[in-house]
Amino acid sequence: MEDGKKKRCLVHFSPSGLKVEVEKGTILLDAAHKVGLYLSSVCGGDGYCGKCKVAIDEGQFQAKPTGLLTADEVRDNVVLACQTKVLSDLMVTVPTTHALDTGRILIDSDAHRFSEMKGNGHGTTFPFDPLVRKLYLEMTPPSVQDHTADHERLYMAIRRQIDAPLMQTGYQILQKLPGILLNSRYRATATVGRRGGTTEVIEVDAGDHSRRNFAVAVDLGTTTVVAHLVDLTTAATVDTEATYNSQLNFGEDYIRRIIYAEENNAFDEMQNRIVQDVNNLIMTMATRQRVNLQEITTVVCAGNTVMVHFLLNLDTRRIRREPYVATASFVPPIRAAEIGVQINKRGLLYCLPGVAAYVGSDIVGGVLATGMFAKSGICLLADIGTNGEIVLGNRDWLVCASSSAGPAFEGSGVRHGMRAGAGAIEKFTYLGPGRFNYQTIGDRPPAGICGSGLLDLLAELHTHGVIDRTGRFSEDHDPGLTYGDDGRQYRLVPSDNGRQEIVITQADIDNLLRSKAGVFAAIRVLMEATQTRLEDLEMVFLAGGFGNFLNVRHAVTIGMLPDVPVERIRFVGNTSIAGAKMALLSREALRRAEEIAASMTYFDLMSHTGYMEEFIRARFLPHTDLSLFPSVRGSASAKCKVGSGIDQ
Amino acid sequence: MEDGKKKRCLVHFSPSGLKVEVEKGTILLDAAHKVGLYLSSVCGGDGYCGKCKVAIDEGQFQAKPTGLLTADEVRDNVVLACQTKVLSDLMVTVPTTHALDTGRILIDSDAHRFSEMKGNGHGTTFPFDPLVRKLYLEMTPPSVQDHTADHERLYMAIRRQIDAPLMQTGYQILQKLPGILLNSRYRATATVGRRGGTTEVIEVDAGDHSRRNFAVAVDLGTTTVVAHLVDLTTAATVDTEATYNSQLNFGEDYIRRIIYAEENNAFDEMQNRIVQDVNNLIMTMATRQRVNLQEITTVVCAGNTVMVHFLLNLDTRRIRREPYVATASFVPPIRAAEIGVQINKRGLLYCLPGVAAYVGSDIVGGVLATGMFAKSGICLLADIGTNGEIVLGNRDWLVCASSSAGPAFEGSGVRHGMRAGAGAIEKFTYLGPGRFNYQTIGDRPPAGICGSGLLDLLAELHTHGVIDRTGRFSEDHDPGLTYGDDGRQYRLVPSDNGRQEIVITQADIDNLLRSKAGVFAAIRVLMEATQTRLEDLEMVFLAGGFGNFLNVRHAVTIGMLPDVPVERIRFVGNTSIAGAKMALLSREALRRAEEIAASMTYFDLMSHTGYMEEFIRARFLPHTDLSLFPSVRGSASAKCKVGSGIDQ
Repeated sequence: MEDGKKKRCLVHFSPSGLKVEVEKGTILLDAAHKVGLYLSSVCGGDGYCGKCKVAIDEGQFQAKPTGLLTADEVRDNVVLACQTKVLSDLMVTVPTTHALDTGRILIDSDAHRFSEMKGNGHGTTFPFDPLVRKLYLEMTPPSVQDHTADHERLYMAIRRQIDAPLMQTGYQILQKLPGILLNSRYRATATVGRRGGTTEVIEVDAGDHSRRNFAVAVDLGTTTVVAHLVDLTTAATVDTEATYNSQLNFGEDYIRRIIYAEENNAFDEMQNRIVQDVNNLIMTMATRQRVNLQEITTVVCAGNTVMVHFLLNLDTRRIRREPYVATASFVPPIRAAEIGVQINKRGLLYCLPGVAAYVGSDIVGGVLATGMFAKSGICLLADIGTNGEIVLGNRDWLVCASSSAGPAFEGSGVRHGMRAGAGAIEKFTYLGPGRFNYQTIGDRPPAGICGSGLLDLLAELHTHGVIDRTGRFSEDHDPGLTYGDDGRQYRLVPSDNGRQEIVITQADIDNLLRSKAGVFAAIRVLMEATQTRLEDLEMVFLAGGFGNFLNVRHAVTIGMLPDVPVERIRFVGNTSIAGAKMALLSREALRRAEEIAASMTYFDLMSHTGYMEEFIRARFLPHTDLSLFPSVRGSASAKCKVGSGIDQ
Repeated sequence: MEDGKKKRCLVHFSPSGLKVEVEKGTILLDAAHKVGLYLSSVCGGDGYCGKCKVAIDEGQFQAKPTGLLTADEVRDNVVLACQTKVLSDLMVTVPTTHALDTGRILIDSDAHRFSEMKGNGHGTTFPFDPLVRKLYLEMTPPSVQDHTADHERLYMAIRRQIDAPLMQTGYQILQKLPGILLNSRYRATATVGRRGGTTEVIEVDAGDHSRRNFAVAVDLGTTTVVAHLVDLTTAATVDTEATYNSQLNFGEDYIRRIIYAEENNAFDEMQNRIVQDVNNLIMTMATRQRVNLQEITTVVCAGNTVMVHFLLNLDTRRIRREPYVATASFVPPIRAAEIGVQINKRGLLYCLPGVAAYVGSDIVGGVLATGMFAKSGICLLADIGTNGEIVLGNRDWLVCASSSAGPAFEGSGVRHGMRAGAGAIEKFTYLGPGRFNYQTIGDRPPAGICGSGLLDLLAELHTHGVIDRTGRFSEDHDPGLTYGDDGRQYRLVPSDNGRQEIVITQADIDNLLRSKAGVFAAIRVLMEATQTRLEDLEMVFLAGGFGNFLNVRHAVTIGMLPDVPVERIRFVGNTSIAGAKMALLSREALRRAEEIAASMTYFDLMSHTGYMEEFIRARFLPHTDLSLFPSVRGSASAKCKVGSGIDQ
């Protein structure tokens, strides 16, 4: 059937309008990748997550049989892109809830929401002393009385402005120094960067350029990459931008991505993707703010250990295998250009230090940003992202753990779950059986539910008795309750004008309960290990990209956070980027981050005997042990029927 | 007369046998340069030093008229190579006293003599702590109990062996680290280099390579480049080698070379030459000792400021112009590969710190090597090379100056002067009028006179009344006294078997007196400025490439060194390389060198009002003021007729 020469097929994707020519027989998911279209793919193309559904409107294709499609979908030529071969020119429609973007460069305007969350330290301030500074130096030119060499003259002038006992200069700078000093009559700007205990002269330019010095803080999330542009002369954040991590089509969680990279020798590709994402963010902000890329001298990154390793193309293979070893938790500063990050060609790229393979620099950033490392009272930080990381402690001690309970609160593994972007329902109020008030991001028509909406939903459904303490739909005669392909489901938003109805399924609820249980079990293990009582908790910080209208009370209601008074719970948004930003503005902050990372004790939950037991108990609403949730005890949940033997 | 297409001419040089094809009309000196034949050329090809004399044995040439050739020479077709055009194939003979080499790679076996002089510190020892070390690390592999990241595991292992509070690792090393540790089961060798206050992980290799670690110390002389190969595991010097500086055909002194480089935009060429010299020395020693270049991890250079600048291609133009500014006196360590020095590709190249444009790191090395920086008593160091540098002081203070009195004691500006190589007369004893005992280096037939021989000669001629206190030949009826093209001259070695006679001319003596006067005047200025009396001098160190049999007493007799008891004068040879070697063996030594350089006070003699007066007085033998030389006063010199009015 095949010609000796492979036939070329044109694939056209709606609604993005992207087109790509591929060889006949190409997998449709690969065709989408090729043109930069990021389809959701939890399993990394193995055909068992069912996330990469697309509809073929026209043309020939060959799809492997799958149980992940409903009869209706099969009838409508809906296929799994990863299981479908292109056999002719195709017209393909990508559902808006599943496509991660509609354009080549993934700047989601709603992603601003991630980045605008408050991020400054809570009560802790550091001296303003950026990692990279521009110093305008007015030097006395040499004379017969003073023939100090140029290099030493430069050092003396720098040391008059900043404390820099140990200094370094690269050979290139040394070579061009005399020309610059002569031409400028010894009026020049030195760009100096802190590297550990030393100060490097990164660049020397004629004249005064000290007013133009910018830095970028980056949160390398598994799902979303967020960047802030900071004016280092004023410490002001002048722009923010976010994008989906374009590694997403290699798998939604990073373990999948490591496996993909191993199997396809695609570590370079992984690096290229994330570097390109960072470059796109920087370029977008720089263009908008009329900042020349050469004026950006610093990048500080925070992220989980795998993302930092992908960025630097460090070995990730052993991170997913016992004993889970990273190449570096403390990454030395490098020149950004060494990995292709496009700022000043001699600018420095720093990574906040991490703790272990599964507790990365994003969490250290969180400890820094919340200020908990400096408090006498014990604080708890729960950062809910694709994983859920927990830190407990105060100025004397810090323990941390990572729960791999899954990214349900990021919308993954939930039928109509989605990230906190345009059209996401971020707030739910139960009005009565089958009736809800809701609010979407950007006031757009509802396209799905993001983390804060899911949190509301679980709490509201439970509080009003729609689901029982095990998460099962409890009232068969509820008008909201219907049956779908996955069994029981509850209608949240009716279909309207061709828009599909939005539901939550029993499987969705189970996934959400697993996620919240993972978080709470981790909290319990850490609290028990440190003999911390509920009343010892001075503050509970909830971090993550939930959406802005997060009802922290609901996090207690469902048993994700411990039952402390609501005024002791604070939603702190993206603390990873907040920590990165503090570091770029103050080397003292970076030094403290290093102390934090070095002093944090990591609990490996997987090898902790009590964790599984805690996890099982925490899968109930709010918990098997109601005495842990006195404030919840009196609520409607008490009305629910409870399976026997779960109270202990 | 000329064809459209230039005619090619073959020039054949004897006795080297080197041949080169050049265009008709090429300057003969350029033809010699082209084939790597280094003719002596003080003036850099301007036609007024008369040093590049060669004889044309066959062929056509066009020579500019010059007053620098005798009638006999013109008759014998002797020409100045820099003033002569090649018009046909030529057979050229290069006099052995003037050619600097007879082969392409300039390894003069006699140059060992420069390098074998004792070089260790005089009473001062530093802890053994090389700048670059190889540490064999046996690390416990990661386990569930200890999943410290590879990079931190490496640092911990390094810190168990050495003190390294601040560490750095390059991106490349970080990337390859996990593979090396895994493959070697965490048994690896880290090469670590000290850079200022930090320790850089330069290289990591699987297995134990700690027993193979070598360093090279280099003395970058204007005339001679000397290198020592040091085994860093035993601190032993395992080989030495020396070569003429192949920049010599751009001028014998470095000011000439700067001018040449400026006029011909030849700074890259200057760098290439000296780098090639260093590479040749390293390659020769490495080959002989079966050391792989990758096993050489360190180069430490000492030299005058201009030579160090040429090596690094730093701006030298302002060094020769008021206010005489260097690019750097403290040169940061660089990777040797950055300038093309061929050792381990990530190995480090250090330069000892210098003081000023005219007091370089060779002198700092001398202060380090003599140990004078640590003595309570005041010491004097006179390093006689192409310039004469003087340091005076003790552990509390150090002053220094550079006298540009000329390289007469290196044989330049002296008719039969030559460097301390094969055939050079290094020792003279006066037997009677016109009769001398002499000794040559390598016991070869006498080809000329080197520094120690010239020193002997001046002292002996003066002591025995052949020259008076002004340096003039005093007895007309002395059978040694003859007349040559330059007027009066004294026969030292009669002609024999076709070998020309060796004489010293009145002009030679005047040059030598200028040199010694420059040195002594500088000493006087420094002593007076610091109110140092003769009896305060605990030790006088004489350094330089004089030849091995230097009679230090004669240096007092002629009034070059102050009149202290002979047991307080020590000839210390090449202290530049001795200092470099101490630094590569001990970072404490380098740190002390930095302190020395930073604390030394530089006296600019040219702008010092008293210097010229001191210089004029010191041009006499031993001095106008005989009270300065009580031990000399009673000698034969008292018998000499003295010009009126010079006693003050």
